[in-house]
Amino acid sequence: MKKCCRLLLTCLMVLLFSAVSLCNAGELKNSANKLEPLEWMSIAPGIWKTVIGEEDDLRLTDLRAAEAKVEALQKMPEVKFPLNKSECKGYVFDGKAAVRLPFGKNEQMYGLGLQFEGMNRQKNVYHLRTDTFNGNSHDRIHAPVPFYVSSEGYGVLINSSRRVSIYAATAHGADDSDIPPRRDRTTDKNWQYITQSSHVEASVSGPGVEIIVFAGPTAMDAVRRYNLYNGGGCLPPKWGLGFWSRFHSQWSADAIAEAADEYAKMDFPLDVVGLEPGWQNWAYPCDYTWNNDRYPDPAGFIKKMSQKGLHVDLWIHAYLHPKSPLYKPMLPLSGSHMMYGGIAPDYSLPDVRDKFSDYMGKTLVDIGVSGLKIDECDGGDDVIWPDHAMFPSGLSGERMRAVYGLYLQKTVYQMYRERNQRTYGLVRASNGGASGYPFVLYSDNYDHSCKLSALCNSSFSGILWTPEIGRVREDDDSIRRMQTVCMSPLAMLNGYSSAAKPWLAGKKGAKAIQDAMQLRMSLLPYLYSTFAEYYFEGTPPIRAMSLCEGYEDKIQVVKGKLNDMDNPYAVSKRIDKSDQYMLGDSLLVAPIIPEKDGTSRSVILPAGKWYDFYTGKFAGEGETINVKVPLDKMALFVKDGGIIPMIKPVQNVASIKDGTKLTVRHYGTKAGSFSLYDDDGKTFDYEKGNFAWIKLTASIDGNGKMTGKAETSGNYKPIYGKITWKFMSLEK
Amino acid sequence: MKKCCRLLLTCLMVLLFSAVSLCNAGELKNSANKLEPLEWMSIAPGIWKTVIGEEDDLRLTDLRAAEAKVEALQKMPEVKFPLNKSECKGYVFDGKAAVRLPFGKNEQMYGLGLQFEGMNRQKNVYHLRTDTFNGNSHDRIHAPVPFYVSSEGYGVLINSSRRVSIYAATAHGADDSDIPPRRDRTTDKNWQYITQSSHVEASVSGPGVEIIVFAGPTAMDAVRRYNLYNGGGCLPPKWGLGFWSRFHSQWSADAIAEAADEYAKMDFPLDVVGLEPGWQNWAYPCDYTWNNDRYPDPAGFIKKMSQKGLHVDLWIHAYLHPKSPLYKPMLPLSGSHMMYGGIAPDYSLPDVRDKFSDYMGKTLVDIGVSGLKIDECDGGDDVIWPDHAMFPSGLSGERMRAVYGLYLQKTVYQMYRERNQRTYGLVRASNGGASGYPFVLYSDNYDHSCKLSALCNSSFSGILWTPEIGRVREDDDSIRRMQTVCMSPLAMLNGYSSAAKPWLAGKKGAKAIQDAMQLRMSLLPYLYSTFAEYYFEGTPPIRAMSLCEGYEDKIQVVKGKLNDMDNPYAVSKRIDKSDQYMLGDSLLVAPIIPEKDGTSRSVILPAGKWYDFYTGKFAGEGETINVKVPLDKMALFVKDGGIIPMIKPVQNVASIKDGTKLTVRHYGTKAGSFSLYDDDGKTFDYEKGNFAWIKLTASIDGNGKMTGKAETSGNYKPIYGKITWKFMSLEK
Repeated sequence: MKKCCRLLLTCLMVLLFSAVSLCNAGELKNSANKLEPLEWMSIAPGIWKTVIGEEDDLRLTDLRAAEAKVEALQKMPEVKFPLNKSECKGYVFDGKAAVRLPFGKNEQMYGLGLQFEGMNRQKNVYHLRTDTFNGNSHDRIHAPVPFYVSSEGYGVLINSSRRVSIYAATAHGADDSDIPPRRDRTTDKNWQYITQSSHVEASVSGPGVEIIVFAGPTAMDAVRRYNLYNGGGCLPPKWGLGFWSRFHSQWSADAIAEAADEYAKMDFPLDVVGLEPGWQNWAYPCDYTWNNDRYPDPAGFIKKMSQKGLHVDLWIHAYLHPKSPLYKPMLPLSGSHMMYGGIAPDYSLPDVRDKFSDYMGKTLVDIGVSGLKIDECDGGDDVIWPDHAMFPSGLSGERMRAVYGLYLQKTVYQMYRERNQRTYGLVRASNGGASGYPFVLYSDNYDHSCKLSALCNSSFSGILWTPEIGRVREDDDSIRRMQTVCMSPLAMLNGYSSAAKPWLAGKKGAKAIQDAMQLRMSLLPYLYSTFAEYYFEGTPPIRAMSLCEGYEDKIQVVKGKLNDMDNPYAVSKRIDKSDQYMLGDSLLVAPIIPEKDGTSRSVILPAGKWYDFYTGKFAGEGETINVKVPLDKMALFVKDGGIIPMIKPVQNVASIKDGTKLTVRHYGTKAGSFSLYDDDGKTFDYEKGNFAWIKLTASIDGNGKMTGKAETSGNYKPIYGKITWKFMSLEK
Repeated sequence: MKKCCRLLLTCLMVLLFSAVSLCNAGELKNSANKLEPLEWMSIAPGIWKTVIGEEDDLRLTDLRAAEAKVEALQKMPEVKFPLNKSECKGYVFDGKAAVRLPFGKNEQMYGLGLQFEGMNRQKNVYHLRTDTFNGNSHDRIHAPVPFYVSSEGYGVLINSSRRVSIYAATAHGADDSDIPPRRDRTTDKNWQYITQSSHVEASVSGPGVEIIVFAGPTAMDAVRRYNLYNGGGCLPPKWGLGFWSRFHSQWSADAIAEAADEYAKMDFPLDVVGLEPGWQNWAYPCDYTWNNDRYPDPAGFIKKMSQKGLHVDLWIHAYLHPKSPLYKPMLPLSGSHMMYGGIAPDYSLPDVRDKFSDYMGKTLVDIGVSGLKIDECDGGDDVIWPDHAMFPSGLSGERMRAVYGLYLQKTVYQMYRERNQRTYGLVRASNGGASGYPFVLYSDNYDHSCKLSALCNSSFSGILWTPEIGRVREDDDSIRRMQTVCMSPLAMLNGYSSAAKPWLAGKKGAKAIQDAMQLRMSLLPYLYSTFAEYYFEGTPPIRAMSLCEGYEDKIQVVKGKLNDMDNPYAVSKRIDKSDQYMLGDSLLVAPIIPEKDGTSRSVILPAGKWYDFYTGKFAGEGETINVKVPLDKMALFVKDGGIIPMIKPVQNVASIKDGTKLTVRHYGTKAGSFSLYDDDGKTFDYEKGNFAWIKLTASIDGNGKMTGKAETSGNYKPIYGKITWKFMSLEK
């Protein structure tokens, strides 16, 4: 009986495999178990895909917030496939699907998600995996986006929810024609431990993988195409760009209302009030019910906040306490394992998303909660479900971990979208395809230098990052951190355990912090337009210097010295610059880290002339300058012809009234223009065309005199009244 | 046409899956896609296995050095299956095979390979992977043995060459009946970030996995069974237990001969001369040919060494230079990727192993080379082949990386075995099943404290580890490191880049080092017998205290304090003791780490009385003592009734002549016995019974007087002559 079964089985398998080969011939040509050239299919202007092996049943971009913005892509320069096709190969072997793409000797690689160190990714290996902050890992990170951007002006997405391994020009194929010279270690002083290879290789454990290539022509264009393919960048509500403060978890509604009032009294801006786990009866795990001791009248509290122009954001995580009203309905729809003693609903199921939205919509959104902070969807290994966990959708724990943050963003985003209400929130895990979600990443990594690297690196990967500050003390560190915070996508003081308030930095410090916070409020028109550029054109609001025109990425390599105990392979160290960035089109930000910089630092100015933001004075031109930065100022520079529209600092966005006066600053001596965007700032009506552009143009007449002009277009009446031009580098 | 194909395919798949279900019903019952109890099969006395999903085509134990020692296993206590069977469950889901086994609240977990930190493994997650030293990773390690031992007296092997993930009582099943109390983080001071679960879970990405359970009754018995299942521990040649010195890679044969002579002249023991990459014309990658400039007459050089009683060991790695005579024949049998510019032969193929053995046998072994140091078979991610590399055998790079070190050990071991010649060597990667291979692990991790942890942890996993010393300077550190080295499985000074010699520690230091080295030589009879115990009974030569009778594993937990920036989850820290160990049955070794200990340290003495090794004085009894240890001594203690046979220090093993006098030390006041082992020390004739046991017994007569007795048995005439008993704690 058994023998007969085996025989039948063998026959069937032979037949089956023949059938598979036959059928695949017409569809999937990239599934040989040896390295073979790949076929590519155009899927959008300047974007191509290939599939190696079987089509993945859950690609990252399946989770994007909206369909590709094809019109915007069509407006971009016409381009050809950016790689040498005959050098693009792939295969499926022993349960792995792999791709090999060419990589030049002088190419730089950027991206791969929310990286905390450096910026150049070549000559390293990344086994990307969602994880909480856990030392300075470069592959177990909050947002392990398997998308890289090349200095040669293209990008590559390994579009898989499986764990992606990327060999960034480290793996040398035995068939490589371009092999670095072999050197005898005993006698050749130029022997090197790691040699750069001529390919990037990537793989997943699974039956297949989709690869998407985004053309440029520039690296920034590749990033734009990536973001546009994901539906464009997110456009936050205006209030989201004001100042956020999270209050101590144990505080009551009254204590928080009092603290919020203090902000107004002390003249420190405040837009968003963040409540931590303590708003609930149970957390951890969560029950999603208001704690009546601390919040006897939640709706009343939120209404009171709203009357002061404030928005309320609530901390949650996804794991449900048995006492939660959602527990019972979610139980059969949850994974096989618990986190923090709570069940983990399978958010890949529409039913789960609906149940969450129904309940949270009614109990939170409908009484005025403006957004959520979705914590711990990354998961430390020691608390999250195991890789082999079973979810009702059929996804393993490993794959669910890769997309849990994405699914939660999708759920909350849709919940607000259904109400035609924009939201802006925080999330601790994300991945590829996230560009369109209005969520900002944060971490328990509090190193200022790492925070800066993360700001730079987020720009390559369609994600946003806040360098939130956790403490305020009488020291330079607090001031400098707050300055960085104010030049970021989400400016937040997180006092969940420290109970910090911004004026606790001493008299002089408080003034400096107030200046930084008020500068942010003044820049709101500029910031909001910068996000509009993200939404309409895919250009990220924060930009690593390497994405910017005129910047040359110089990598310093410190040669390794053989030391049998500390450096047995004499490994060289690469030092790359990830401590300055562009905020929007015109503003170069170079934060100070007191323990490293003291009060002065070097700043690399890209090609062209650059000017001091505060004074309009010439600062330098395509060179590295050293600047001394007093505590109450930041190192901010504007490029020649740069235009920055500003308003007077306000307490919060709600207090910006119709007819608000605009001061438009122009820097340098060149003509320039800026597209100032406006809409209602809170609904999705902009998707129906309800928005306006004010084209601000500075031009030079025959006598060399500069004049400014503003032209409004669109279906919306902008909030701004009188416009005053200020030619910063010409006046006086 | 396509449609018709799809239809055919669907029909066939339905048929195929039915057939699979039908056939499996009789064979593989553990392959449901939901958690189900497992069936277990007895495979040796006290050893059971189960298979979840498909039988793995490459299990770790398929690579063991010899078949299970069933007779030795039969002599062990009769035992039942050590776990609650109804709590042992498994499943296959979304490409992963998983197992869940019970784990008690007060159970301690040990093992998981060559760990550099701590000893208690519960409450952590391990994604085991072979890797070179790379920070203090606990799962990317040289020997990621997926075998754990429980304080409750059993062991579990996840017998897979795939990457094993182990969730050591961290994962909480949603169906767990025993859930830790849920605590509100906002209000409950006893809230904890990580809570211990009631199960160990483990999984691999692949169609199936074999799990083997080893009963005790004690933890040490479980380790013994594991080692015996792997064919028993290795028995090194006697010379391997002498002192090793590796000389500078650039030195010539003459320079090395001169240095070796210096050892004799200065009266520092030396058995093995290690040559580094410089013996070859090309390395990296290797060509395996003698460099004639540095070694004009290799055979002559080795003969000269041999005449001085010295053995020669050669450094190699597996990667072949195009100039190697092995390159061409190995090219079609190698992997798809290069390492250090060399091809990586597929050592899982018998043909590759034969080609290596033929060539190396003729050019190296036959001219007298006694062993090899097999470097870099672990591989840093940035230099080794990628996980998706293709090997001709059909193994992916990922699986090959897990077993490459094992296959190389097997190859070299077999090469010597065919000549009936024992070898002892070094290797930088190993895995489960390795107990029988005469290879010792080493690392580029030079932290003394990590080296001690590795010594302790190696004892749980059937592997050996050398804490080799790399530098000798005029400092306490050099002395203390050398002392640790002399109390380890392989005592080596590695001067490949430092050109260090043991007498460079200053006059006083040199004397202390000489004492330590000579003590090792005096202990050779004890050491060799300790290895015989490893071979015949599976008891490891180095033993973590937790494996020893009368030792209670007290774990100290330092409660975490919430700190928003440094410890946002208020995680507690566990401190466990991994800085002292047993060497053989009687000797407790507690090395001094000067930067931590200064010159005194605390030592935990297990139950019973303990005595100072040097003086025989009573030291303590089941307590923690604090001892001051002068630089020229070690903290060495012997248990009550302990017997240690010693000889006078010799220059090397070759100078131990027939009739060598033996001094047998007895400690304490209790009767005791010791089985002294002897054989020819160099061939495999012991496998045919050519060995002897001298049973040394100390007993007390009616008057309380202690006498010693020696009884010889076996087919071999031991080398020892007159035996003198020394009752260390009774005399004077």
